[in-house]
Parts: sequence; C-alpha cells; structure tokens
Amino acid sequence: MVELLESGLAAVPGRLLVTDACSTKAAVLAAAGKLDPRHSFVGGHPIAGSEQRGSAAADPDLFRDRVTVLTPTRSTSADSLARVRELWAALGSRVVEMDPRVHDRILALTSHLPHLLSVFACLAAAPALEAAGRDFFGSGFRDISRLAAGSDEVWRDIFLTNRDNLVQDLETLVRLVSEWRSVLERGDAAAISAGLKEAALIRSRLLRKERGGASES
Amino acid sequence: MVELLESGLAAVPGRLLVTDACSTKAAVLAAAGKLDPRHSFVGGHPIAGSEQRGSAAADPDLFRDRVTVLTPTRSTSADSLARVRELWAALGSRVVEMDPRVHDRILALTSHLPHLLSVFACLAAAPALEAAGRDFFGSGFRDISRLAAGSDEVWRDIFLTNRDNLVQDLETLVRLVSEWRSVLERGDAAAISAGLKEAALIRSRLLRKERGGASES
Repeated sequence: MVELLESGLAAVPGRLLVTDACSTKAAVLAAAGKLDPRHSFVGGHPIAGSEQRGSAAADPDLFRDRVTVLTPTRSTSADSLARVRELWAALGSRVVEMDPRVHDRILALTSHLPHLLSVFACLAAAPALEAAGRDFFGSGFRDISRLAAGSDEVWRDIFLTNRDNLVQDLETLVRLVSEWRSVLERGDAAAISAGLKEAALIRSRLLRKERGGASES
Repeated sequence: MVELLESGLAAVPGRLLVTDACSTKAAVLAAAGKLDPRHSFVGGHPIAGSEQRGSAAADPDLFRDRVTVLTPTRSTSADSLARVRELWAALGSRVVEMDPRVHDRILALTSHLPHLLSVFACLAAAPALEAAGRDFFGSGFRDISRLAAGSDEVWRDIFLTNRDNLVQDLETLVRLVSEWRSVLERGDAAAISAGLKEAALIRSRLLRKERGGASES
C-alpha cells in the first residue's frame, strides 16, 4: 500500500477516491502525502479478520457489528470521508474516527505485541521439541501459537511500520518479566494470584461484548 | 495434592496405591516421600484437558491418543507402575515414562511459559482498554488471552511448584525481547521475516499430528 501511494498514482486518469484497510496507519498516511493532488485519500482499518485467505474464506458478516477506524487529516475532504464512511456502514460496521498515531499506539497493544508474544512462545519452545517431540503440546499451546501461523510477509510489514510503538511495548514486557521473575523467585503466592486475577479481569472486560456473545471464562 | 501427600495418609487403613494428574511433578514426588510406607505412589500427568470444569464438561475421549507421562522413581514398585499404566491405557492414552525433573523442564516451555505470555498480553493491554475500549480487540487477542482466563488457584500452584524452570524460561524471554528489539530498531526486514518463518515452522512441527488432524495454517 505504501509503495502504491508513493507512486502518486499520477499515471491514473481522472480523479480517484483512495482508501485502504491496513493494520497500521501512520506510515500509510505519510505515504498518502505523495498522492497526486487530483486524488483524495481516506485511511481505514476494520478491526476484524481471520488468518484465512482467498475467496473460499469470504464471510459476508465479517465486518458486521465490528469497529472500523477511519483516520482523516486536515487535508481530507468532508465528501471523501462521508463516502468511505458509507462504504463501511453498508457492510454493517461501526465507524469511528481517530488520529492515525493514536490508532497505531492502541493496535500495538491489542494486536501487534500479542502477535509477537505468540512468536516468542514458539521460538522459546523449540528446545522442548528436540527433547520430547510434538506430543507434549496441549490445547493451550495450540491457542497461544495460532497467531504465529499467520503470513510472515503481512506481519513483517506491520512490525516495520509500527516498530516505534512495538519497541515501547517490549519495554513494558521487560518490566512485566522483571516483576514476575522477582515474585516467582521469592515464591510470593499472594502476588502470583493477584496478577493472574488481574489478567483474567482485563480479558473479561476487553471481550465482554464480543460478537457472538458466548461466555468464555 | 502436595498437602495430601505430606499428611502421609497415615490415618487411612489398609494399603493404598496413590497416583495424581498434576501439571508439575518434582514437587509432588518430593511430597510423596512423606507417604506412610504402607502406601505406594506413582506420579502421572496426562497432556490433555481444557479450561472447562465440572461434570457437564466431561469428555470420554479426552485422553484418547494423547500422551500421559508417568514418573516412576527407584522406590516405585513394578506392580504399582503396571497398574497405573493400565489405567491410562484403558482410557486410550499413550503412556511414556520420564524423570520428573525432565517433565517439569519440558512442560515449563510448552505450557507454563505460554500461560504466562497470555497473562502478559492481558496486563500489557490494560492501557488500551482505558484509551479505546473493548471494541479494538480482534480474534487474535481473544486466542492469545484465552489461557489467562483459567483458574488462578490452579495456575498459582503450577507456577509455585515449577518456579525454577519458569525463571529460567523468563531468561530466555528476555533474550528474545532483546534480539527483537534490536532487529526492530534497525528496521531489519530480512531478520523479521526469518524470525516469523522460524516461529511458524516450529509451530507446524509441534502440532503436525495433533488430534483431529485438521490443517490450521
């Protein structure tokens, strides 16, 4: 998308309204600045999807009741914004507007760091594969490693275009590791319980009104 | 289980064959040393289960084609070991014998560290909940955070009884974070791709012959 925008689409006749559905927005918006001024651009990101690809995985309700973030800037015309908003609304999505940098900061915490944690779970487990083979892996490992099965090209680009936020999140992770290491080393049962309860509470608050509505805990 | 074994079961009449299904084995084996010598103990751990509880969640095929680890020691009688082995075989499980310390080392990598990573994903995401609310969480976050919804009492005890291995795994995690931070800071696309591919490969090797056999990636 960045390369497409940077080409400016100068060779394309007429006037285009261009939008996107990329997982990071700041880099896309920066590239959109190079678009031929005949065209207009509205950044978008639907918070929905799956690891599947291709027309066989198509789902007409994929965006229904999900949020789509649009990231208008001062140069976005009201007309262009309204047309892209109508597109997502027609798919059943709830549209919110947000600064692209705020979008990227939030998505780093809710999607990009989780993806990297899934990758870490796989990389850390490699010695166990050598020692014991695949039969020692239960459903917990299957769940937590699912993200790491995603497209390496897609995720390379997400990581590259949101790397400043991701580096900041790795600092948070280092702090969490340090805290838990200390708690484990001193065998602090109360602190371990409190941390586990806090994590479960955060999860239940985050997913309370998830589509489908099934209780999961 | 540790408390039960440490009581020695001295007040129980007759001779008991005692076994368990706990997720860590070294601490259970140490406690079993206090059992009244009339009784005998064989440690066990089926690599199967779910986050659900209660009789409504019962599954007669839960252990079918899954591995159960038994951890006999020098004091385990051949007869006791054979009887516990038959129990698990009757449930369809494949039984392997392993040193309890090796079991705990492997499970730290394949289950206990992944659980803690799921907890970290939730704890790290808390600021996003404050900033944007729950609608910014997609299916990826739901998957990776599922483990953190488990029982805090069960996982407190697992973490406490396997804390030395878990601390060692947190050192591995610190090394991974440091490597990825460096790769991200210098925007090394080739190294990011290589790491993502390696993680996906490890996952596919680990889960290749998973029960159900459905291809997932």
